[in-house]
Amino acid sequence: MRGFSPRISALRESPTRKIDELRERLKRENRDVILLSTGQPSIPPPREVREVMRELLKIDSMELYGYTPSQGIYEVRQAISEDLKRLGGLDIPPEQIVLTAGGQAAMFSTLATLLEPGDEVVVTDPTYFGYRPLIEYFGATVKPVRTTLENGFQPEPEVLKSAIGRRTKAVILVSPDNPTGRVLREDIAKAIADLARDYDFWIITDEAYKTLIYEGHHVYIYKFAPEHTISINTFSKDPAIPGWRLGYVYGPPEVIPKIKLMNEEMVYCPPSFAQRLVSIYLRSEVRMKYIREVVEIYRHKRDIAVSALRRYVPEARFIVPSGSMFIFVDLSRYIYDGEEFAKKLLEKYGVAVVPGSYFSGIYRAAVRISFVTETPERIEEGIRRIGEAVTTGLEKP
Amino acid sequence: MRGFSPRISALRESPTRKIDELRERLKRENRDVILLSTGQPSIPPPREVREVMRELLKIDSMELYGYTPSQGIYEVRQAISEDLKRLGGLDIPPEQIVLTAGGQAAMFSTLATLLEPGDEVVVTDPTYFGYRPLIEYFGATVKPVRTTLENGFQPEPEVLKSAIGRRTKAVILVSPDNPTGRVLREDIAKAIADLARDYDFWIITDEAYKTLIYEGHHVYIYKFAPEHTISINTFSKDPAIPGWRLGYVYGPPEVIPKIKLMNEEMVYCPPSFAQRLVSIYLRSEVRMKYIREVVEIYRHKRDIAVSALRRYVPEARFIVPSGSMFIFVDLSRYIYDGEEFAKKLLEKYGVAVVPGSYFSGIYRAAVRISFVTETPERIEEGIRRIGEAVTTGLEKP
Repeated sequence: MRGFSPRISALRESPTRKIDELRERLKRENRDVILLSTGQPSIPPPREVREVMRELLKIDSMELYGYTPSQGIYEVRQAISEDLKRLGGLDIPPEQIVLTAGGQAAMFSTLATLLEPGDEVVVTDPTYFGYRPLIEYFGATVKPVRTTLENGFQPEPEVLKSAIGRRTKAVILVSPDNPTGRVLREDIAKAIADLARDYDFWIITDEAYKTLIYEGHHVYIYKFAPEHTISINTFSKDPAIPGWRLGYVYGPPEVIPKIKLMNEEMVYCPPSFAQRLVSIYLRSEVRMKYIREVVEIYRHKRDIAVSALRRYVPEARFIVPSGSMFIFVDLSRYIYDGEEFAKKLLEKYGVAVVPGSYFSGIYRAAVRISFVTETPERIEEGIRRIGEAVTTGLEKP
Repeated sequence: MRGFSPRISALRESPTRKIDELRERLKRENRDVILLSTGQPSIPPPREVREVMRELLKIDSMELYGYTPSQGIYEVRQAISEDLKRLGGLDIPPEQIVLTAGGQAAMFSTLATLLEPGDEVVVTDPTYFGYRPLIEYFGATVKPVRTTLENGFQPEPEVLKSAIGRRTKAVILVSPDNPTGRVLREDIAKAIADLARDYDFWIITDEAYKTLIYEGHHVYIYKFAPEHTISINTFSKDPAIPGWRLGYVYGPPEVIPKIKLMNEEMVYCPPSFAQRLVSIYLRSEVRMKYIREVVEIYRHKRDIAVSALRRYVPEARFIVPSGSMFIFVDLSRYIYDGEEFAKKLLEKYGVAVVPGSYFSGIYRAAVRISFVTETPERIEEGIRRIGEAVTTGLEKP
């Protein structure tokens, strides 16, 4: 009998994809939209690196086009190993790294490897909306633990501990955080690592934004619990090849071969052209210079966004993000429903943001603003329009 | 509690990956290996197309690097739609096409969309070894139906019908076939299409090699059962970008959005750089010229391989492949066990082939030979060594 898997019916269109579609429609209607919704970088990979790729495309052989090992090309994993050493002082041999078709495939394959029906996965609230559908697809349930604006969205180990039970398979942490921009404090990372050892659960740490830090430094929780930590990474943000789909997972030696097998079944091997670019990039002289320049540009844009929020939306509540690409803005002094607000903001004011309810069961009168994609002028103008929208009684009855 | 999903334990390393590893070891030992094992093309994409990509890499914008829609860029799907019209006279609108991260992701996402535990999937024997692990991963069972060398490895509708039961969710067909090179006959395709309608099962048609035809023509079974057929496609063979990971699925309007959602969860969007190349290729003037030239070169290599087999391995039994990249060689007049033979052939004679037992429960004293990857001289030499290996009592007790 024809028909479909009942599991597939649990899947829903990604909420940002819904915004993308509305945006596409406005584009077709020739309406200009200010994009404060997407986490897409605004600066392409370094020109020097692209030049090398251009030379490679001249060569008449299959070298650049052929299949690669399903774990990824060894030299690329070596380059990543060196990069993790340079960035965080980590000692991760290439054998403990598996390349994947982007951060999404890294998370999908990791959860596929770990989860079984009945498992519980602890996530913070707010957190990235992409985890819940995956957790539920694999038959596990989501257990959110509250973090608060007042506490800088730092997870509180005692609160987290109270959510841990017999069925807790994993805790997912994101730092720098999406959507709040919070950078995990070292003492908290240590406390969570202790919990992971005491209660024997996996820490899945999403480090997509690890090189986008504006104040402080990125804490590699793997250092504090190497046997319990699986790290999800992407090259979508650094060096800005989101469409090319390349990411990686590093973790304990017994986990990586399993995640590799899962990726082999899903996509056979990670995209090779992206692997070559990343290998050249990570070992090039411009690697640290490029990311420092990118961070300076994004920091400037963040400051523009923060000033504009204080000026145009003075009752907005948020933490100034120490990392990532986002500000999570609580508008509860103006509006009731972030989803309704975001929709009207896009239709009437031509500004795209992501509603807070996509990230949180608590902060439902909030929106996530990305400060990297648009120019400083357009970021300011977008936030000015948000200020106009919240004060013209768009929402408040 | 830490631990793993029990489903992941069903996954095994791809058998060709095992051969790859042995090959890597021999390479490190500086031993030259003749590769008759891999289905990797030997001719890179057309230079004209690569030139356009080189120009695009010059541009300082995110256009080439950004996320694409999860179904794939609309213009790329339009180009595929036109290509299917040109190649097979098919009318498939872009809405009925979803781009994927290669043929593997196309098959994974399709089976994820269709299968549930308890389902049965009918496959031919022999067939490509990549299907069984996926079918079993999704909790379904494999029901093989015998095809024979004597009958040109054409599936027999009556035999196939006897395998159809209440739990049959799908039949997987490959044409041109991997591993036998058989091209499905039109009358048989029609008969299977009739069965699909009568018994209401899905036909999953793997058309990876559809443009690699040496005699006759490719039959698009979709034409005979459009509501029951889901087609798996790849750009790994034409235009030869296997490492870049791009494929697509076309099928009925109600299936494609579900497969799209699954791909969104797996990899978010298909690799964009590969999408651009394919779009340029399919619409370029060199599209048909390139594939005609490739087919001529592969046909020549096939003829070399066939002659060499007749000369050096005269008791070998095989059909001359009308398509694909492979000859499936029954060596039962020489040896008992293809797996043992392939291992020794690689170690002692430096020739890599894939054992027949990876494809078949019946043809276990067989090997699959690829005739595209190596030069004509090395193909002939490889087959000469096979002849030596089978006659020097390597295996026969």
